Amino acid sequence: MQLEAGCQIHYHASEPTPCIFMLRPRSGYGQWIMSEEYVLAPKVPILEYTDFYGNLCQRLVIPAGDFQVRTVAQVETADEIDVQPGAPYLSVENLPESVLLFLLPSRYCQSDQLGQLALEIAGAQAPGYDQVSAICDWIHTQIEYQYGTSNASTSAVETAQSRQGVCRDFAHLGIALCRSLNIPARMVVGYLYELDPMDLHAWFEAYVGGQWFTFDATQAQPRGNRVTLAYGRDAADVALATQFGLLQLQEMKVWVKAVST
Amino acid sequence: MQLEAGCQIHYHASEPTPCIFMLRPRSGYGQWIMSEEYVLAPKVPILEYTDFYGNLCQRLVIPAGDFQVRTVAQVETADEIDVQPGAPYLSVENLPESVLLFLLPSRYCQSDQLGQLALEIAGAQAPGYDQVSAICDWIHTQIEYQYGTSNASTSAVETAQSRQGVCRDFAHLGIALCRSLNIPARMVVGYLYELDPMDLHAWFEAYVGGQWFTFDATQAQPRGNRVTLAYGRDAADVALATQFGLLQLQEMKVWVKAVST
Amino acid sequence: MQLEAGCQIHYHASEPTPCIFMLRPRSGYGQWIMSEEYVLAPKVPILEYTDFYGNLCQRLVIPAGDFQVRTVAQVETADEIDVQPGAPYLSVENLPESVLLFLLPSRYCQSDQLGQLALEIAGAQAPGYDQVSAICDWIHTQIEYQYGTSNASTSAVETAQSRQGVCRDFAHLGIALCRSLNIPARMVVGYLYELDPMDLHAWFEAYVGGQWFTFDATQAQPRGNRVTLAYGRDAADVALATQFGLLQLQEMKVWVKAVST
Amino acid sequence: MQLEAGCQIHYHASEPTPCIFMLRPRSGYGQWIMSEEYVLAPKVPILEYTDFYGNLCQRLVIPAGDFQVRTVAQVETADEIDVQPGAPYLSVENLPESVLLFLLPSRYCQSDQLGQLALEIAGAQAPGYDQVSAICDWIHTQIEYQYGTSNASTSAVETAQSRQGVCRDFAHLGIALCRSLNIPARMVVGYLYELDPMDLHAWFEAYVGGQWFTFDATQAQPRGNRVTLAYGRDAADVALATQFGLLQLQEMKVWVKAVST
Repeated sequence: MQLEAGCQIHYHASEPTPCIFMLRPRSGYGQWIMSEEYVLAPKVPILEYTDFYGNLCQRLVIPAGDFQVRTVAQVETADEIDVQPGAPYLSVENLPESVLLFLLPSRYCQSDQLGQLALEIAGAQAPGYDQVSAICDWIHTQIEYQYGTSNASTSAVETAQSRQGVCRDFAHLGIALCRSLNIPARMVVGYLYELDPMDLHAWFEAYVGGQWFTFDATQAQPRGNRVTLAYGRDAADVALATQFGLLQLQEMKVWVKAVST
Repeated sequence: MQLEAGCQIHYHASEPTPCIFMLRPRSGYGQWIMSEEYVLAPKVPILEYTDFYGNLCQRLVIPAGDFQVRTVAQVETADEIDVQPGAPYLSVENLPESVLLFLLPSRYCQSDQLGQLALEIAGAQAPGYDQVSAICDWIHTQIEYQYGTSNASTSAVETAQSRQGVCRDFAHLGIALCRSLNIPARMVVGYLYELDPMDLHAWFEAYVGGQWFTFDATQAQPRGNRVTLAYGRDAADVALATQFGLLQLQEMKVWVKAVST
Repeated sequence: MQLEAGCQIHYHASEPTPCIFMLRPRSGYGQWIMSEEYVLAPKVPILEYTDFYGNLCQRLVIPAGDFQVRTVAQVETADEIDVQPGAPYLSVENLPESVLLFLLPSRYCQSDQLGQLALEIAGAQAPGYDQVSAICDWIHTQIEYQYGTSNASTSAVETAQSRQGVCRDFAHLGIALCRSLNIPARMVVGYLYELDPMDLHAWFEAYVGGQWFTFDATQAQPRGNRVTLAYGRDAADVALATQFGLLQLQEMKVWVKAVST
Repeated sequence: MQLEAGCQIHYHASEPTPCIFMLRPRSGYGQWIMSEEYVLAPKVPILEYTDFYGNLCQRLVIPAGDFQVRTVAQVETADEIDVQPGAPYLSVENLPESVLLFLLPSRYCQSDQLGQLALEIAGAQAPGYDQVSAICDWIHTQIEYQYGTSNASTSAVETAQSRQGVCRDFAHLGIALCRSLNIPARMVVGYLYELDPMDLHAWFEAYVGGQWFTFDATQAQPRGNRVTLAYGRDAADVALATQFGLLQLQEMKVWVKAVST
C-alpha cells in the first residue's frame, strides 16, 4: 500500500540549540521512498550524514525563537510483514558479523539482568522465532499500555518491574529479553498505518532463521504498512530529535494516510 | 539558489535487464535536498543501497518492453564554489586516510602514464591549488569540446592524445593529471544550472589545502549551482545507469530550473 | 618505550561454548605493533572480524574441557600521553560525525541521569579539557578503589551512589559525566605499564579541542605506556571475552614488561 | 599447513619519500595469523590504517639513506582451496551489495573491452564457475609466462594482445574476462607455498554460487597454502608498496616455509 507519512514539529528555543534529527526515511527492505520533502522554517544551514547503522541524520542549530520542521514522504510499503513460526535460533558462531552488536546490552535494554525472566517466558518454546513470539505475547498481555507511566530514562528492567509503559518501553523489554536468550534484537522507530492514537511509533526486530523479523508487542496481530525512520540498539540511538540544550516542544503532528493510486 | 533538477529516461528492453541507477541525490556539502521524487513506470521492485563512496544506488530488473524512470529534486545549492588560489599541496603523509584512494590510477585515469604531461603543464606552479588551476586552464584551452569524438571506453591517455572529448573526458584528464602530481582527485557527476546544452554533467574535485575543491575544465570561470548525484574514482564508479545486458535508450530529458522562493 | 604485553587465560567448559575475544591489539595512535602472537590450546577454528569501532574480534567455539588462550605483543608505546589544559569544548555542530555516537548514553553510562552531578563537579571550569580534568580528579578522590564492591552489571549511576568500584567503574563514571556535559567520551581497555597489581585495565578518552585525550581516574598523574586492545561506548562493547554460555575461568595471567632495545 | 611467510625489502632513498605498504596479513577466510612481526630499520614513525577493502595499510616517510622493512608471519593456512564445478552464475540482482563494485572495469582490467574474447573462451560453458575455469585454462595455455615482457602499466587488454606476462598480468586478464561476463572478480596478492621461483604472488577470486572462489591461472592445478596480504579491484589497489617519489629498490627477499608442528 502506498502511504503518505509525515510529521510537523514546532519548537521554541530561548537560545540557539544544536540538534540532531532522524526524520528522513530511506528506501530499504519493505519500503520504497517515492517522494519526500523536508522543510525548515525559518531556513537554517543543515547537514546530513549517515550514522553507524546507516540512518540518515540531520544536524543543525535551531535558532532562538520559533522553529518548525516538517517532513513528509510518499512510501510504497509492504502490506504484510514476514511471519515464520519455527524459524530457528542461530547459534552465535553462525550469525553474520553485522548482527553481533545487537546481542550486547545497551542503555535501555539490560539483557544481562533479564535472563531469568526470559527463561520463564520463553524457556518452553522452540529456540528462535517461537521464543520471540512468546516474549511478544507476554508483553502484550502482561504490560499495561499507559501514557505517563514512563519517561525518557525508563529502561527494560524498570518496565519489567512496573508492568506499565508505552511503545518504546514495550520495544525495549522485547529487545532485552531476546538478547538475554542470545537472539540479536534491534529497535525500530517510524510510522505505522492506522496506529490509534496516531503518533510516531517504536517496535523491534529479532534476527532468527537467517533474517530480521518484525515484532510489535503493542499489537495483537502482526501488521504491515510500516515506514522505518531509523534502526539502532535502543532509543538512545534512534531518538528522532536529540537536542543539546533546552528546547520547548510547542506542538507535534503526525499523520499516515493511504494514497489511492 | 534553489534549483529543480530532474531527468527522465525512456528505455526499451527486449528482455528483463538488471540495472543499477545512481539517480537520487543526497544532501551534502553545498546542497540540501528539500524534496525529491523517484518514479518508475511501470512500477517494479527496486532496492536502494549505499556504495563504497556513500552514493545512493538503486538496483532493479528492467522488465521487457517500455520502461521509464523519472527523478526530480528541489535542491538548495551554493551559488559560489570555493576558490582558493595558493591553497597548498599536502604531502601524502599528511593526507586523511579517506582521500588516499583517490591518489591511485583507475580505469579511465591512468595517472601512472601522464606524469610528464602534468609536469609540462603545472611544473612551474606552486604545488597545490595553483597546479590544479593550471591543469584546468590547459584542458579548457587545449582540448576541443566535441560530441562524437569519444565513447564509453575513452580514457585520459587517449584524450591527451586526441585533444578532443566531452565533459566526462575533460574530467578524466583533469583527474589523471592531478593524481600524477600526487594530488587526490575524484569524479563528480550531477547537474549544473544553465549548462548549455542542458545534459547530465561531469566535473572533478581535487584535495588541496585540507579540503576538496570543485574544478570544471569545461567552464571558463568557476560556477556554483551544482547538484551532485555521485562521487567516485572515475566514470566506471559513477555511471548514472549501469546496465547488465542490452537496453535501448529511447529518449532522455534533463532539466535544471531556478525556483523562485 | 617498547613493551611486551600479554595475557594467558585458562578456561574449563562443560560444553562447547561460543565466545568472542578482543585480545589482538592493532597498531594505532600512540602504539605500533612490532610483533605479536595468538595461541590457542587446543587449536580450534577461529575467525577474526572488525567490529563497528574498528576493533579486531575473534570468534570461536570453546570446546568442552580445558582450553587456553595466550596472546602477547611487542609494542612501541608513547611514553607520554597528550595533556592540554585549556583545550576547548567543541559545540555539537562542530564535532566530526564519527564522534557523535559517543555523546549518547549507553548501558553502563547513563549520562541522561548524571547532569546535575556533572555540573556540581565541573560547572565552574572552563568548558572542555579542564572540565574533564575536574571530573577525573573528583573520581580519583571521591570514589574508593575497592575490589569486590561492584560486578559486571554495575553502572555509572550506581557507582556515583556507592562511591566504590574498580577501574571499569571509574571509567564508566568518567564517561557518563563527560557525556552529560555534551563532551564525547569513550571507553578504552588494554594494558598499562607498571599497573599495580598488574591486570587488564580500563580507562577513557574524551574528545575536546579537536582530538581524543586519554584520561585515567585511577591514576593520580597522567601516565603513558599504554597498549589499547579495544575502544567502545562502554564495557558492553569492549568485553575482552564475551561468552555465550557457561565457562569456568580457571586462571588468568597478565604481564607488561619493558623490553630493552 | 602452518607456514612461515615473510619478505625483506632493502631500499635506498636519496630524499625522504612517503610510502604506503600493505605488508601485514590479517586473519581471514582460510588463514589464521598465529604470530607475526614487522620491523623497520632504522625505526621511523609509521601509522596503520584500514583501507576501503579492509586491508591493513602502513603509511610512513622513508628517510634518506638505506632503509629496510622486514615482515614475517606464522600462518595456519588451508591446504585445499574450494573447488566447485557447476557453482552457478548469480544474476546481478541476486548479488550481495558488497560484491557489486567488483563488476566494474578498473585501471588494469578493462572488462568493457573484452566481452568478445570472453564469449569466445567461455561462451559454451555453463554460466558461473565453469566459465571461470575455462578462462583460467585458456590463460594458462595461451599466455606465456615470461618475465620482462610486461611492466607496471601493462593492462589486461595489452596482455590479451601480447599473450605474454607474469602472475599479475594473468590475474588482470582473468579478472577482466570474468567481469565482462558479469561475474564479480577481485585481485589477491600474497604468498603461495612452493611457488617457484619464490616471490610475492598475485591471483584472483571470482564470486559464483554465493561465495568467493580462488583461481590462479599461473598454476595447472588448484593449490592451497596461500597467505593473502591484500584484496582489491586490481594491482592499483593492492600494490604492496606504493611510493610517492623515487626510491631505489636494492634487494628483496621472499620466503615461505612449512613449519613442523
